[in-house]
Amino acid sequence: MPVGTFEQYYDRLVAMKPNIYVGGEVIGRSDPRLAGGIYVMRQTFDCAHDDRYKEYCTATSHITGETINRFTHVHQTRDDLFNKQKMTKLLSHRVGGCIQRCMGIDAINALSVVTYEMDTALGTKYNENFLKFLAYVQENDIVANCAQTDVKGDRLLRPSEQPDPDMYLRVVETRPDGIIVRGAKSCNSAAPYVDEIIVTPTRFMGPADAAYAVSFAIPADWEGVKIAALPGVRHKREYIDAPIAKVGDMESLTIFDDVFIPNDRIFMNGLADPRQTPYAGFLALMFAHFHRHSYTGCKPATSEVIASEAALVAEYNGIAKASHVQGKLAHIIGLAELVYAAGIASAVKAEKSPSGTMIPDEILTNAGRKLAGEEIYNENKILADLAGGLIATLPLEKEFYSEGVGELLHKYIMRNPKISAENIHRCFRMIEDQMISEFGGAMIVAGLHGGGSPQMEEVAMMSRYDLEELKGIAKYLAGIEPEIPIYDRKYVTPRKILEKFKKYDN
Amino acid sequence: MPVGTFEQYYDRLVAMKPNIYVGGEVIGRSDPRLAGGIYVMRQTFDCAHDDRYKEYCTATSHITGETINRFTHVHQTRDDLFNKQKMTKLLSHRVGGCIQRCMGIDAINALSVVTYEMDTALGTKYNENFLKFLAYVQENDIVANCAQTDVKGDRLLRPSEQPDPDMYLRVVETRPDGIIVRGAKSCNSAAPYVDEIIVTPTRFMGPADAAYAVSFAIPADWEGVKIAALPGVRHKREYIDAPIAKVGDMESLTIFDDVFIPNDRIFMNGLADPRQTPYAGFLALMFAHFHRHSYTGCKPATSEVIASEAALVAEYNGIAKASHVQGKLAHIIGLAELVYAAGIASAVKAEKSPSGTMIPDEILTNAGRKLAGEEIYNENKILADLAGGLIATLPLEKEFYSEGVGELLHKYIMRNPKISAENIHRCFRMIEDQMISEFGGAMIVAGLHGGGSPQMEEVAMMSRYDLEELKGIAKYLAGIEPEIPIYDRKYVTPRKILEKFKKYDN
Amino acid sequence: MPVGTFEQYYDRLVAMKPNIYVGGEVIGRSDPRLAGGIYVMRQTFDCAHDDRYKEYCTATSHITGETINRFTHVHQTRDDLFNKQKMTKLLSHRVGGCIQRCMGIDAINALSVVTYEMDTALGTKYNENFLKFLAYVQENDIVANCAQTDVKGDRLLRPSEQPDPDMYLRVVETRPDGIIVRGAKSCNSAAPYVDEIIVTPTRFMGPADAAYAVSFAIPADWEGVKIAALPGVRHKREYIDAPIAKVGDMESLTIFDDVFIPNDRIFMNGLADPRQTPYAGFLALMFAHFHRHSYTGCKPATSEVIASEAALVAEYNGIAKASHVQGKLAHIIGLAELVYAAGIASAVKAEKSPSGTMIPDEILTNAGRKLAGEEIYNENKILADLAGGLIATLPLEKEFYSEGVGELLHKYIMRNPKISAENIHRCFRMIEDQMISEFGGAMIVAGLHGGGSPQMEEVAMMSRYDLEELKGIAKYLAGIEPEIPIYDRKYVTPRKILEKFKKYDN
Amino acid sequence: MPVGTFEQYYDRLVAMKPNIYVGGEVIGRSDPRLAGGIYVMRQTFDCAHDDRYKEYCTATSHITGETINRFTHVHQTRDDLFNKQKMTKLLSHRVGGCIQRCMGIDAINALSVVTYEMDTALGTKYNENFLKFLAYVQENDIVANCAQTDVKGDRLLRPSEQPDPDMYLRVVETRPDGIIVRGAKSCNSAAPYVDEIIVTPTRFMGPADAAYAVSFAIPADWEGVKIAALPGVRHKREYIDAPIAKVGDMESLTIFDDVFIPNDRIFMNGLADPRQTPYAGFLALMFAHFHRHSYTGCKPATSEVIASEAALVAEYNGIAKASHVQGKLAHIIGLAELVYAAGIASAVKAEKSPSGTMIPDEILTNAGRKLAGEEIYNENKILADLAGGLIATLPLEKEFYSEGVGELLHKYIMRNPKISAENIHRCFRMIEDQMISEFGGAMIVAGLHGGGSPQMEEVAMMSRYDLEELKGIAKYLAGIEPEIPIYDRKYVTPRKILEKFKKYDN
Repeated sequence: MPVGTFEQYYDRLVAMKPNIYVGGEVIGRSDPRLAGGIYVMRQTFDCAHDDRYKEYCTATSHITGETINRFTHVHQTRDDLFNKQKMTKLLSHRVGGCIQRCMGIDAINALSVVTYEMDTALGTKYNENFLKFLAYVQENDIVANCAQTDVKGDRLLRPSEQPDPDMYLRVVETRPDGIIVRGAKSCNSAAPYVDEIIVTPTRFMGPADAAYAVSFAIPADWEGVKIAALPGVRHKREYIDAPIAKVGDMESLTIFDDVFIPNDRIFMNGLADPRQTPYAGFLALMFAHFHRHSYTGCKPATSEVIASEAALVAEYNGIAKASHVQGKLAHIIGLAELVYAAGIASAVKAEKSPSGTMIPDEILTNAGRKLAGEEIYNENKILADLAGGLIATLPLEKEFYSEGVGELLHKYIMRNPKISAENIHRCFRMIEDQMISEFGGAMIVAGLHGGGSPQMEEVAMMSRYDLEELKGIAKYLAGIEPEIPIYDRKYVTPRKILEKFKKYDN
Repeated sequence: MPVGTFEQYYDRLVAMKPNIYVGGEVIGRSDPRLAGGIYVMRQTFDCAHDDRYKEYCTATSHITGETINRFTHVHQTRDDLFNKQKMTKLLSHRVGGCIQRCMGIDAINALSVVTYEMDTALGTKYNENFLKFLAYVQENDIVANCAQTDVKGDRLLRPSEQPDPDMYLRVVETRPDGIIVRGAKSCNSAAPYVDEIIVTPTRFMGPADAAYAVSFAIPADWEGVKIAALPGVRHKREYIDAPIAKVGDMESLTIFDDVFIPNDRIFMNGLADPRQTPYAGFLALMFAHFHRHSYTGCKPATSEVIASEAALVAEYNGIAKASHVQGKLAHIIGLAELVYAAGIASAVKAEKSPSGTMIPDEILTNAGRKLAGEEIYNENKILADLAGGLIATLPLEKEFYSEGVGELLHKYIMRNPKISAENIHRCFRMIEDQMISEFGGAMIVAGLHGGGSPQMEEVAMMSRYDLEELKGIAKYLAGIEPEIPIYDRKYVTPRKILEKFKKYDN
Repeated sequence: MPVGTFEQYYDRLVAMKPNIYVGGEVIGRSDPRLAGGIYVMRQTFDCAHDDRYKEYCTATSHITGETINRFTHVHQTRDDLFNKQKMTKLLSHRVGGCIQRCMGIDAINALSVVTYEMDTALGTKYNENFLKFLAYVQENDIVANCAQTDVKGDRLLRPSEQPDPDMYLRVVETRPDGIIVRGAKSCNSAAPYVDEIIVTPTRFMGPADAAYAVSFAIPADWEGVKIAALPGVRHKREYIDAPIAKVGDMESLTIFDDVFIPNDRIFMNGLADPRQTPYAGFLALMFAHFHRHSYTGCKPATSEVIASEAALVAEYNGIAKASHVQGKLAHIIGLAELVYAAGIASAVKAEKSPSGTMIPDEILTNAGRKLAGEEIYNENKILADLAGGLIATLPLEKEFYSEGVGELLHKYIMRNPKISAENIHRCFRMIEDQMISEFGGAMIVAGLHGGGSPQMEEVAMMSRYDLEELKGIAKYLAGIEPEIPIYDRKYVTPRKILEKFKKYDN
Repeated sequence: MPVGTFEQYYDRLVAMKPNIYVGGEVIGRSDPRLAGGIYVMRQTFDCAHDDRYKEYCTATSHITGETINRFTHVHQTRDDLFNKQKMTKLLSHRVGGCIQRCMGIDAINALSVVTYEMDTALGTKYNENFLKFLAYVQENDIVANCAQTDVKGDRLLRPSEQPDPDMYLRVVETRPDGIIVRGAKSCNSAAPYVDEIIVTPTRFMGPADAAYAVSFAIPADWEGVKIAALPGVRHKREYIDAPIAKVGDMESLTIFDDVFIPNDRIFMNGLADPRQTPYAGFLALMFAHFHRHSYTGCKPATSEVIASEAALVAEYNGIAKASHVQGKLAHIIGLAELVYAAGIASAVKAEKSPSGTMIPDEILTNAGRKLAGEEIYNENKILADLAGGLIATLPLEKEFYSEGVGELLHKYIMRNPKISAENIHRCFRMIEDQMISEFGGAMIVAGLHGGGSPQMEEVAMMSRYDLEELKGIAKYLAGIEPEIPIYDRKYVTPRKILEKFKKYDN
């Protein structure tokens, strides 16, 4: 049943082996500290069955022709990209931010491109492995994430130069039936409640780094996988439950403590064949690229959530008409539109790769993600500004329902008599959850760093941008060159990186 | 010959009656002070005949089926909008900024929509007038601008409340064969070298303002039209001529000193029929809207010109590799991409109006124009930053070729020996022209105010944005409402304004 | 013993009556949830006895000549203002942010000015009450806060216009020996662990609002005072304790549920004498003013803490030499210097009020506080940027010391071999505490709103700034006026507000 | 007569030898193109005799005890620094920006420090030369500028590494009675109308660069000095003259075409004694430092001029009460206050150098200058925003007084009937002069680059800032170190640079 249900997913989770390390314990997936993340994932199943959402949340598999959950789909058309962006936005609205499942779809799309091109160039058979894995994922509506960020040790040294060679995940042993890998992946969000972890390299690799050019997928409770976790929680509610309060996540540093990977789950292995090594960088960037395109869906949603909360609290605070308030809302709304526009335009300018996968334009995608990252703190500042200090000083929920002060708090929280005390309470409680909770704090940081910080998007943009051609305009205007280039920038993709690293190829 | 030539245009210009007031004289169109603006207009003719450009610079007339200059075209499809945006960008590159002819195409498109809908609603015949005018424009490749901005007098009073009733252009007399209008239009760029001036209202009009709800087109040298002008000039070159130095404009305050408008050149007249009055605001906004969409073509071009000059001068200054330089270039490039993306996305989300004209989405268009306006000073700051103080202290061109110090200046301007002294000179001279000349200074202001300042785009965005629906997200997350709206914002257009003003309609 | 000890303070606290409502309970001051705030207050006692700090943390009482804790001092000289600023900065360094005790000193200074001037003008005797209270505060090194922010109800209505008249704290009954007050004060930080709560009006009051023009001081556990509280906590540490982890606070909404105030504790009472009503605004602004001057000490400290953490984590991350890192650190450091400079300059330009109290210049103080508020989110963005995503995904402390993954986490957190895993862990743990904890989130909001948001400082600046005189420069340059004013702005104070409201005075 | 008159200065100018190259001619000082700059200089004489200004514009010579023009004074006290800052601000108001004479006073102060310390350390006699020169300057109220910025050639190479060794000014020959120097100084403002040019190095010099470590002063028309100039002009006025229109400057690239410098005019010469070489960097930075402190006077003035114009035009445009307008004015005013505060605070924290000269704190001075530079484009944006597009499209002055359209233009420029058409015209004409003229454009660039761009202030700040000590705060808070430093940053000066370069000293 390729459009799975939450129940099927949940049943799989609770059947998994406990390997999550939290607060000194090893816990399984039924632990209540996972509930926030699982609630988020639930939306991706429920909405695929919901008439209001299913147009965006399902797709037609290009390998089976069946209707599948879009989170397991490989984009075949521009419309696929438009719909993925829209799905990401709509689901992000429902959870007030990150929908958490995009890592999987982005890793799948990246692998679809890279394994195909590697096989074509080198005669390897990884695309076969990938398609088998994809069929399994689509058939069972599997939730996957992507473990990319190595712990990196000394940032000034390459993987093979580190004093401790395990600072980047690597192959430590080759067996007839598979490989043994060792290392740790940081910032590995949602690992505690995914079915599968897809592992990709975090950067390009040089010839000496062949053992680090490795990619594969394994179940999240696989032998040797140890998930050291950080629960992302909001304040528990007892009286005025609300969607915002149900949302959470669990972040992790996932350790691969000498983990065996069977041959058919491997998608790249530079140690077996050093010609694959340059493809590590290609895969790293391709995942980042699809992931940043996902951000052109979720970041506008996050901005809209903030704008929505800001507009509501401004109304409740009686300041909605003030011109500075309008200006601040317009600023956030404008950002949401621009980042979304970047996603649309990058889809309009997308190209079909040899594998058949549609790849959005890289400069536009990065320009959108960059703006979103640069502005996330400012957006939160605006929300805090319009909400006022109360969001940081609101007594606990329980006090509002205590004998001692409950009634008084309801009396004193009143603003406009047309709005009930409970609704005012709900509004401020929501914003407190959004901004002051541990999960909220982490999400702001994620808004900056998720998918790469603005600094990294700048690097991606400038690596691919043809400055020499751009300079042709100035040279013409200055009279240095007699003719101007027709400067309507070409479609750009991380595949360019491959040419750069082909030099390692012999 | 619907794709006209520069020579035809120029012949028409020089045949016109002198009515341009500059420096105490009344001059005609062959005066050298008009050369800069005419050079810019020339590009719009030459490129329509140039194989590299003609795909974008020509279009197929929906009234005759003939190939016409795109500047005379009414957009019928999304591709028309894409091509208009691209044409605007490519031509703007050629002149290092504003291509000056978009006012005409934007006014034509606005009139195509508004006259049609007004006729449909009120049974008037203005669309007939318009189509006759359009046929003339297309047949002769006529250059038009749009006189919109009234001088406005006291900004706190409506047109009919002003102590001097002429602060907004109005009908002062009705005759059997036409009307007499009086008033003045400020910031009326390019008026001295256009064939036709199209006049539109500058704001919505209330019932008392019926005489101000007037629109028409007349030749720029028509009896009673007095163009008080400001030449926008760059430094004259004697030795190292360059495209940048040929560019200029002529701004104007255009006075309508009791001007007779024949009936067939009138497109709206609230005095004749007060039911037309609300359409003044519709037309004002519709012109602004198409014009702002044009800015999603020219503003990215301007950003790219600045980035191009900044990249070139950074190279010449030997600082191109510095990370702060890369960051600054990335910032400008990212802006160009985002504003361009806003234009693309607003075309993707465009709708065909009842008249058949494609109207881009208003929120996206305004979000793009707003960002461009907000950042223009910052972009200039970056260019000045990377160029260094020399752009403001460079001795005059003549000194570089004088016996006294010419050789010494060439000696001392050298930087990298791989780049000739002349090219370095050309580069700094170009940036000086771009930033320090009077025309350059005016163009920065135009980058802020042209088509409306960011403040006005904010107003446009917020007037049309459905904040109540947006708040539905927060209400759901807070638990105030049980269900969330599918918040994928609807297509929005200035036509909404009409509903608002329909209340005047009886 | 006018320089008290922490033990004396703590003994007083635990002897107080339980009236703090947290989590459904009524708790006393020995509850561990108060420990974070009490730890902060402890610094203000300990440092006054520490040779390194005592120069700044003690002062000479102008009423007794004794050495007192500076937090109980009324500023008599410019050096007092310099030393208060320096004390605030140094103590804020010790707790990584807000030192929490400045509300008391700022309220005392405001009352010293306002009661004196009110008595002089009206013949009242409130300065006597104040001086008696001050003697008690100085003698016992009393910790006070200031309850200013009323809950305000409908922001568009004045106090006396609210549907519920208790939305601003007011006198509801007058008795021979005192008054009964009712209302609630929001954002009343530290109330759970202060000795005394000083109450001041939150805004200017009109003639109809006389009952709201009231000020007084009472012990924090006084009959009828109900403190509904929000504990501000950081993550508990079990293995690597550190100063940052000990810091916390408790915010509150403090309810005055028909509280009796004895006559000698009253500092203003508009109900008894309507001529006092205008002084409510004077007192409100004067407290805000002294408080904002305190922010010119603590905000630079906060910026320096952030810069310090950012510099440390950049070093640990191996990116300290990157030019964008230097630029970001320079930005924060520059802000710290500018805000501190604003405080210094406002002290240089201070004036001695009739009461003898030195009042810093208002425009400079507000300009400094405004900049700090505007930039606090940006500073946090920079810290998050340089720290990386790990601060939001770091496994819990316990995992680092668990049998299961403890050693592995220490292995994988390593960066530069010269820095121990524990120190790297400590560094990221600290930044997580600073940014991701609930207390951390609240402190960022406090950085925006504490003492008034930038919007309010803008209002304060512009209310007192003489724009007409400023325009004299432009009028001279334009030739509109023949002479230019000597525009070296006069010293400005909230006392100006009094003139404005004197109109109510008869 | 140590407080000279404009007439004395002017008489000296016109007696000078023509050596200014403009527009292909060699001109003398009576040429009308110099009038704008001379008008500015005039203020520095006239105000020293004006009762309203003389308190700030005169000082007491520490060498003669006589009253002198403050522009010839060496700062002996904090009050000298305060008064210099105030003088700079007040005079800058009078000319709407740069007062142009500060280069002289800043160079003199720098030389007073450096020659003294060099003599003390090395036993040289340059302070004697300097004091003799100073006596002459003070006695005759001499106008000097400072030629510092070498043309620099390839920025990646040191002076001695350049393909052309003349890219930095150097000693090419030593004679018994003096030296011959060759090179060119760029951005050498005001050179055409100063009495004396003081030459200082532009950067630190290594041992191989000894010939470039040279400093001296010579009359501006000295044999071999060739001034290739750029006139900075505003629009000529014929009908409504105004101070703003009289202001101008003349920038230059000044060539030293083998110029003989007599021994008693030399202040440093590394070629004669390589131990002097490190003092080149000390002098370069010391001049930059005093110059940046001057900017804490003129930049607030510039901000105030912009705010003043913005406030006036907002009033004339009838938008003064709009909240966004208040916010924009508050922003500029706040900047002016903060930059001024940085200057005050840097004087409060100043130290007396061994020479007796007061040196302001370097971090504070740079933080102030940096903020001013970063914001100058934004300030101009605000002014353009509030003024509207008319400033870029205003017909020429002559049209307002022409028979054809003069009366009509006066009619149509009217806004509020309380303000005359002439005054409105004057206001917009002034802003056009300020923003759109060539001189205006150059002045904005000068606002960014004058005295060094924000990038250079960042370098200066970070070179001197003790980041290691700052990190002590984070180390304490994290529990890495047991004690916190008392972090109240020490006074910092460019003298620190000397220690760094002492290594070259043997």
